[in-house]
Amino acid sequence: MYDDIVKDLDPLFNPKSVAHIGATNNRNKWGFSTITSLIHTYKGPIYPVNSHEVDIQGLKVFKKVTDIPGPVDMAVFTIPAERVANAMEDCVQKGVKAAVIISAGFAETGPEGQKLQDEVLAIARGGNVRFIGPNCMGYWSASSSVGAFMLPLLVRNGPLAFVSQGGNVGAAVVVAGYERGVGFRHYVSCGCAADIQIEDYIEYFGKDPNVKVILTYIEGINDGQKFIDVVSKVTPNKPVIMLKPGKFEAAAAAIKSHSGALAGSYEVYDAVCKKLGILRVDNPEEMLDVALGLLLQPLPKGPNVAIITPGGSYGVLCTDACEQEKLNVVKLPDKTIAELDKIFPPRWSRGNPVDPAGDRNFIAYLTAPERLLALDTVDALIFMGFGGFSLFGNLIAQQREV
Amino acid sequence: MYDDIVKDLDPLFNPKSVAHIGATNNRNKWGFSTITSLIHTYKGPIYPVNSHEVDIQGLKVFKKVTDIPGPVDMAVFTIPAERVANAMEDCVQKGVKAAVIISAGFAETGPEGQKLQDEVLAIARGGNVRFIGPNCMGYWSASSSVGAFMLPLLVRNGPLAFVSQGGNVGAAVVVAGYERGVGFRHYVSCGCAADIQIEDYIEYFGKDPNVKVILTYIEGINDGQKFIDVVSKVTPNKPVIMLKPGKFEAAAAAIKSHSGALAGSYEVYDAVCKKLGILRVDNPEEMLDVALGLLLQPLPKGPNVAIITPGGSYGVLCTDACEQEKLNVVKLPDKTIAELDKIFPPRWSRGNPVDPAGDRNFIAYLTAPERLLALDTVDALIFMGFGGFSLFGNLIAQQREV
Repeated sequence: MYDDIVKDLDPLFNPKSVAHIGATNNRNKWGFSTITSLIHTYKGPIYPVNSHEVDIQGLKVFKKVTDIPGPVDMAVFTIPAERVANAMEDCVQKGVKAAVIISAGFAETGPEGQKLQDEVLAIARGGNVRFIGPNCMGYWSASSSVGAFMLPLLVRNGPLAFVSQGGNVGAAVVVAGYERGVGFRHYVSCGCAADIQIEDYIEYFGKDPNVKVILTYIEGINDGQKFIDVVSKVTPNKPVIMLKPGKFEAAAAAIKSHSGALAGSYEVYDAVCKKLGILRVDNPEEMLDVALGLLLQPLPKGPNVAIITPGGSYGVLCTDACEQEKLNVVKLPDKTIAELDKIFPPRWSRGNPVDPAGDRNFIAYLTAPERLLALDTVDALIFMGFGGFSLFGNLIAQQREV
Repeated sequence: MYDDIVKDLDPLFNPKSVAHIGATNNRNKWGFSTITSLIHTYKGPIYPVNSHEVDIQGLKVFKKVTDIPGPVDMAVFTIPAERVANAMEDCVQKGVKAAVIISAGFAETGPEGQKLQDEVLAIARGGNVRFIGPNCMGYWSASSSVGAFMLPLLVRNGPLAFVSQGGNVGAAVVVAGYERGVGFRHYVSCGCAADIQIEDYIEYFGKDPNVKVILTYIEGINDGQKFIDVVSKVTPNKPVIMLKPGKFEAAAAAIKSHSGALAGSYEVYDAVCKKLGILRVDNPEEMLDVALGLLLQPLPKGPNVAIITPGGSYGVLCTDACEQEKLNVVKLPDKTIAELDKIFPPRWSRGNPVDPAGDRNFIAYLTAPERLLALDTVDALIFMGFGGFSLFGNLIAQQREV
């Protein structure tokens, strides 16, 4: 049991039918927005479950999951916490294989909520129901186009996969990606992660050939050793990015009341990330930038960098940023300087960064890169300042693959 | 001489007529884009100066500045460096009061360029011509709507003023401001700053009542003591923001070849900024964010912060960021928790950050701030996560003015 993550999670990411326990016509409830998300994304059978409704957006409503005539692969929960256990029992009886429990009021609220959560977990485990949450915003997956999400989520299909212990930060990153044209194969708001753990999602994403880069927002991990065991098999083949708050005490307290997780020692996370090759980022914007860089660029062979820019100040800021990141802005050999002397005006910087100081010969700008990339001493080229003022992310053009 | 900065620089920022030495119909030259910028911004008389042209975009062309019939307040230079000294002599003869020397090939190129620059400076000083540059991109000012700028610069009129030792970074910030609806009273690319120094611009901006926040991108300062003397009079009344690269050696070398400035010790700059109350930022994006924050928000009375957010993960990240910045995420008194208990569902965080955990009662979200701001222990409120994922800048709502 629980040893084949693909078999376990496929009913979640590729459900053949979906029940929504707590779907409603009441626009003031999350069950309204979630059923709306489902209807607008999922093309298979959807069964709303609600004891008071008859018809929801044209779909026939069932009083209980067990009343649904056909098989149900996956169930969405938006009912109050105290009713989740009973409904989970119905799911077990019905043979539901996977669920997403959006309902809050579990481990994040304290001991009583933790007890409720343990009860739900025991029922699900007993019936082989794997579930996301509780206390989450839902998930979106392109593999079967299923969006069981509280908010109206604009998301593109694409090569990223993201498990986030924060629904709002996760949604903001996904929507920011949408605005930039970046797509997600899967996005999971994992909440308290009572059953399916963060490392389980990472393992599943690692095995999905459509996923190229894995993003994580992690407040706390339940089983550190299992995390290390699982993730160490993923990172050699697929980049994993981690945003982990909780450096300071007050944030650790906020984490406890948000996802019910223990923040853990920041230093331990640092060490683990270093060992596993997980890329740490400091904020959501940087997470998306790094993901984009990994998607769009080959990894450079080493830390030696050449910079070419039409703006001296870009070159200065970029040099500072490179050194901050321990990249080496290499000295150009005399031969290369002599070559560039032929194509740039005499006022050019005659060094790295290569700054032709306002030269209007754009052919020169376009021929200089190949001369720099031909050097054995240059692992990567930053060709920047031809648009916005971002230093990295979309402006790094790199040459040599590892 | 040079003791009344307003009188000195007014002919620059409020010219009654403008000559453009090196204006051209040749679209491959900067003199074309600069005269185009001028024509599209400035409503007073414009006199193109070029020995080979007769008509430029409908304007009569003069062979020399001295041939212009009317008085000339300000002159723009886009001719090659070696011809600037002669043209400056013409300007002195004509009684020109201010100039912007866009031409490059001066101190930034080495000893010979430095000599040329000293020569131009001596001529200008002899004739009381104050000038921007050399080796700059020009400037834009809303006070008389004058844009003598190399690039097509989208800029809004507004309460910021910006002196930048990098034309490209400066332009990028101004254009990013345009995109966000933020305006600039003045923007100067100061280049090598041979005559008018960075502190002169800061002093002038400090005396312009239309300027609310002063932005600076500084690679190096020529006269540290004068800078301290001047800026110390400005910062008590008007915020000054500084972006200063050159933390690392390679960046310092890039600075030398870019603006001809000496980077100086980063630690010294740190100390000076602290003493003068200059706000340091790490990158252009942050400069604009901080400027926006200063424009849109009163300064808080102290470091004690309350956070309210519909997203627990926003609260966690924000708490981490607050502590990083040495802001204190205060403990809420029991009385306030009891008050919030009445408006939020039982699952709310019952602490600071105030996280109602997905409550859909938006009235509650809107009444909670006043309860938090009523506390003596709260100096500022961060009301966040109701839009994007930015932690600061446009999301900080602060209460008490200093």
